[in-house]
Amino acid sequence: MSSAAGPDPSEAPEERHFLSTAEAAALERELLEDYRFGRQQLVELCGHASAVAVTKRTVLVVCGPEQNGAVGLVCARHLRVFEYEPTIFYPTRSLDLLHRDLTTQCEKMDIPFLSYLPTEVQLINEAYGLVVDAVLGPGVEPGEVGGPCTRALATLKLLSIPLVSLDIPSGWDAETGSDSEDGLRPDVLVSLAAPKRCAGRFSGRHHFVAGRFVPDDVRRKFALRLPGYTGTDCVAAL
Amino acid sequence: MSSAAGPDPSEAPEERHFLSTAEAAALERELLEDYRFGRQQLVELCGHASAVAVTKRTVLVVCGPEQNGAVGLVCARHLRVFEYEPTIFYPTRSLDLLHRDLTTQCEKMDIPFLSYLPTEVQLINEAYGLVVDAVLGPGVEPGEVGGPCTRALATLKLLSIPLVSLDIPSGWDAETGSDSEDGLRPDVLVSLAAPKRCAGRFSGRHHFVAGRFVPDDVRRKFALRLPGYTGTDCVAAL
Repeated sequence: MSSAAGPDPSEAPEERHFLSTAEAAALERELLEDYRFGRQQLVELCGHASAVAVTKRTVLVVCGPEQNGAVGLVCARHLRVFEYEPTIFYPTRSLDLLHRDLTTQCEKMDIPFLSYLPTEVQLINEAYGLVVDAVLGPGVEPGEVGGPCTRALATLKLLSIPLVSLDIPSGWDAETGSDSEDGLRPDVLVSLAAPKRCAGRFSGRHHFVAGRFVPDDVRRKFALRLPGYTGTDCVAAL
Repeated sequence: MSSAAGPDPSEAPEERHFLSTAEAAALERELLEDYRFGRQQLVELCGHASAVAVTKRTVLVVCGPEQNGAVGLVCARHLRVFEYEPTIFYPTRSLDLLHRDLTTQCEKMDIPFLSYLPTEVQLINEAYGLVVDAVLGPGVEPGEVGGPCTRALATLKLLSIPLVSLDIPSGWDAETGSDSEDGLRPDVLVSLAAPKRCAGRFSGRHHFVAGRFVPDDVRRKFALRLPGYTGTDCVAAL
């Protein structure tokens, strides 16, 4: 990791450190390259923890084609295992083997996949107790993932049922949170590994961190002041 | 799966069905091939659940070179994350990339690796609160994994602290449990995916199942009557 991606020393150590995009990428690189975590393993850990953070029975999980969407697919599978009733909307499918395998797992576990998202938001409000936004992660622009995802975000913005965003609210700039006024306004944010800088603009009800798997040395290196996890819990509220 | 590996229809449906070796292999094949689970993913899920089943602070995890040992390495990592104090004895290292990566994760998280296992059992009884037996899984004979593992099993047999075996007590025949008299006598058994037939011979205090990830269809196909899991728990007591 270049020192340029390290934490900003001008921040007081008492303040919670939210990761810049470069720091988040460096942290992930450290886990993958130095610690030899596999991508399958990280996505599994994040998706499981995300499912634990969701407590509604009927859940619509909206997945994009990037890593955030893969975490959404794992989240949906664990929700099914917890005997919830997840439904998936995954309009732009990745050709990546990991995504394809995770999709097969969901399909074979009889999780329904919507072929289109109703534009009439009242239908979604009535059919589900909660929506999980796994459309876009840090560094992915709405334009990159195609029209169906962009249109889904426009629909999610209008919902009255609770919205849970994985890692960052889709469409927000991961650093500045610049779309935090006009874009999605999730009720719950589940930060994966560690909170990204835009999480400082989050004003919803609950902010969870699913990053218990991050080794202590990495936490110290990135000056993360993470929440205290209890017992064998895999998520903690900030 | 060949029908020969299916459950024995002569068993009454009310009885809990314990898997024969052929059925256990068929179940794993179904998860890997049909459901497209990855081995990394399954080992992660099993190791995490195994760690949740362990509740002592100071733990010695004894790992063999096969898949059971890989689950042990993941178990040790999660114990470390739960702020326990695991130590690993892993005398015969696998060249498999998965094992090597899981070893790196443990080493870099400062989990100590013993270079030899004391033959003086009192030293082990005093140093640890509990030992995890991740030496041999179903279908692996002690002779296949080399002298250090065989010698470790002889030592584990003499311990007075609690012993937790992952999947089967190492050295037992997975079907007949034929070594259950002379071999290891674990206090706790953590069945991975589903109980193997020899679990019927287990007479220790606690029998946990870490198989919540097994899809409902697979449970039905193999006539598994699995325990009721609570909330978001990943293990359940039988």
